[in-house]
Amino acid sequence: MPIPDAGANPVNSPSNDVSWARLQDEKDELADRHDLFQIPQGLIYLDGNSLGALPKSVIQTLQHTLDKEWGEDLIQSWNKNSWMDLPRIVGEKIAKLMGAAPGQVICTDSTSVNLFKLLAASLQMNPGRTEILSQDDNFPTDLYMAQGLAKLVTAQRLTLKTVPAPQLASSISKATCALMLTHVNFRTGELHDIPAVTRLAHEKGALVIWDLSHSTGVLPIQLDADHVDMAVGCGYKYLNGGPGAPAYLYVRTALQQKAEQPLSGWMGHARPFEFSPHYESATGMLRYMSGTPQILSLKALDAALGVYDGLDMAVVRQKSVALTTYFVSLINKLQEECAQAMGLKVISPRDTRRCGSQVSLTHEYGYAIVQALIDRGVIGDFREPDVLRFGFTPLYTRFVDVYQCVEILREVLVECTYLEPRYNQRKAVT
Amino acid sequence: MPIPDAGANPVNSPSNDVSWARLQDEKDELADRHDLFQIPQGLIYLDGNSLGALPKSVIQTLQHTLDKEWGEDLIQSWNKNSWMDLPRIVGEKIAKLMGAAPGQVICTDSTSVNLFKLLAASLQMNPGRTEILSQDDNFPTDLYMAQGLAKLVTAQRLTLKTVPAPQLASSISKATCALMLTHVNFRTGELHDIPAVTRLAHEKGALVIWDLSHSTGVLPIQLDADHVDMAVGCGYKYLNGGPGAPAYLYVRTALQQKAEQPLSGWMGHARPFEFSPHYESATGMLRYMSGTPQILSLKALDAALGVYDGLDMAVVRQKSVALTTYFVSLINKLQEECAQAMGLKVISPRDTRRCGSQVSLTHEYGYAIVQALIDRGVIGDFREPDVLRFGFTPLYTRFVDVYQCVEILREVLVECTYLEPRYNQRKAVT
Repeated sequence: MPIPDAGANPVNSPSNDVSWARLQDEKDELADRHDLFQIPQGLIYLDGNSLGALPKSVIQTLQHTLDKEWGEDLIQSWNKNSWMDLPRIVGEKIAKLMGAAPGQVICTDSTSVNLFKLLAASLQMNPGRTEILSQDDNFPTDLYMAQGLAKLVTAQRLTLKTVPAPQLASSISKATCALMLTHVNFRTGELHDIPAVTRLAHEKGALVIWDLSHSTGVLPIQLDADHVDMAVGCGYKYLNGGPGAPAYLYVRTALQQKAEQPLSGWMGHARPFEFSPHYESATGMLRYMSGTPQILSLKALDAALGVYDGLDMAVVRQKSVALTTYFVSLINKLQEECAQAMGLKVISPRDTRRCGSQVSLTHEYGYAIVQALIDRGVIGDFREPDVLRFGFTPLYTRFVDVYQCVEILREVLVECTYLEPRYNQRKAVT
Repeated sequence: MPIPDAGANPVNSPSNDVSWARLQDEKDELADRHDLFQIPQGLIYLDGNSLGALPKSVIQTLQHTLDKEWGEDLIQSWNKNSWMDLPRIVGEKIAKLMGAAPGQVICTDSTSVNLFKLLAASLQMNPGRTEILSQDDNFPTDLYMAQGLAKLVTAQRLTLKTVPAPQLASSISKATCALMLTHVNFRTGELHDIPAVTRLAHEKGALVIWDLSHSTGVLPIQLDADHVDMAVGCGYKYLNGGPGAPAYLYVRTALQQKAEQPLSGWMGHARPFEFSPHYESATGMLRYMSGTPQILSLKALDAALGVYDGLDMAVVRQKSVALTTYFVSLINKLQEECAQAMGLKVISPRDTRRCGSQVSLTHEYGYAIVQALIDRGVIGDFREPDVLRFGFTPLYTRFVDVYQCVEILREVLVECTYLEPRYNQRKAVT
């Protein structure tokens, strides 16, 4: 269920010349945000969709957290420096980026663990329904968590059903407990239409769980207005919270008390410091907490979110679409001008308004090309079997970066650099 | 099942005079470790059993992780700087402190979440048995996680049975799937005898899951030699990994492949970067991973563990027992000399060889006394309903700290400071 074609591209086809890119950068409303990040000089970093760059504020914040909060105030920091409240404080900052009113988002654990909580909760919220419906090319960990839950509750006959995207609408049935989808496809970047899909699911009595890992912070999202039931997402991509940053979860107010999630650790207890032997869920989002949150990682994410202060997400999206559109137009030109680029294929929707902030290409030597680009200072990433992904973070990616990326890609293709054996030895990357 | 009384106390009853304490500090084999920590001047910190003090090395390590690894190497750090391998690397360092051969410990998530994995795994490892047996005053989150799992798998009729400590031995039955216990009781500090209890459980065909949160890093533990099946523990107490530091889990080699834990996120997949839609457990401890680990928090813990380099845990334990014994002897003297101290009661075993590295007292005004002590620079903590806990971390606690703590406690009791209203307003602390 991709969003409908929105007509002609919003950016006029630019000339294949760096001056057009420079002009865009000069006019860029977000240009001042670039300096909030520590980007290595000379590096063209197009992988913020995998690990966001380091916001400079994180360095000062962690220094303070170590020296003053942990080092001096020690255990008292749980109250004095609001560590106890940090999952909620950070959650509320993320909520603002997702169109969620206060009291519906908390930041803790990983996306995977949070999905488990929500999938299990959905069984209680929508009793009698036993199927989780998802897309067969959803991000794997989402499917794995549903598989893990299904195996654990075999006697209740929970099943995970996955279908290709075009069959999703017709596959929602009276058995569907929850439709679990990722907003932006991790391989192709293709977008789902959140309000339309959510409406369809609700018409059939199913709940929706959206994974917003590739969305929050780069796209306008309206969880409340779109009547979304639940959502999760990670903190380390466009939110720039650092490697493996804590994840968040959203449950709309009306549903929060309808379930007790099974990872019922002491931080989700109504009165954790009574140390009662009996679990009693806290009210609101606190019940979706489990164990003690990892404060240093949470503090980094908290500081990182400062880069969004005063930003209009519509402006962020506008630049994002301009960047991806420019990239696609340069790839088009490259293919017109250069026979060696014929093996490249754009697998993202060419109208990038139907995309998240990434464009994916395929090539028989995709892995080796990505490695050769890295060697020349262009960081994208590779996804099996043959996908080259380029992510564009509007807060720090410039139009000249896009221009130079394609110029260096041209060199690698023309010179057949990617055929060198050293670029063909596979290593795991995230 | 406390360990048997081991005879007379190993420390001769010292005179109530600071000179004895100073002498002990001069002779202390661990004295050089004190300077590895940043302890605020003038503070007597006796809460390392709740949040360990800041090892100075953590500051440099996190600075490097931010500036160089995240800031410069960015996404490449997952390979280049071994972020991918960090849960295993840190796990192996902790394994050495627990008498565990390589390949059995991994560091990730929280103690609560890890317990859920192991409790669910125990159902597969020991099929046909449906009861988790525990102690009614076990640390609450351990009980809560079992309660959460039991509710989720109701159709399989999993139950959590809790009994007082003296009834544990007689309560292990053919229905007992796993005996889940915390080695050091969080309120009283009383120790279980790991090898004896484990043997008893095994004789009845039950597995054991030990929570070592208050043990690892302060007591010699021999998981392999004692034939322990599984264990968990947190990284933020005696391991000094920082607030909410990642937790660890141990599964003995022979059991690892006998179960697939249900929080089956992509980091536990056999080949996560194939992005297959079907979950296939990794071999070994990697299958006990779930989502992406929080690297900044893991890096802090990794650096913190350096304080144990070259340490003999028997020496650490020897100092620990000397500190707790000294504390109990000073409390005894205080009660002999001072009528206002009569309301204090030592609830830890007075032979502190039967204790972890903490001593707990009770007092009707326990909460207020702890607050008054904090105001005078002595940090212990309070546990409902009336418990004053004092934790002794042999790596940075000095005998003079113990002396001064009791002297200040004497002042607070004699002056009745704790009756002031400002000390009687409750706040949550961890």
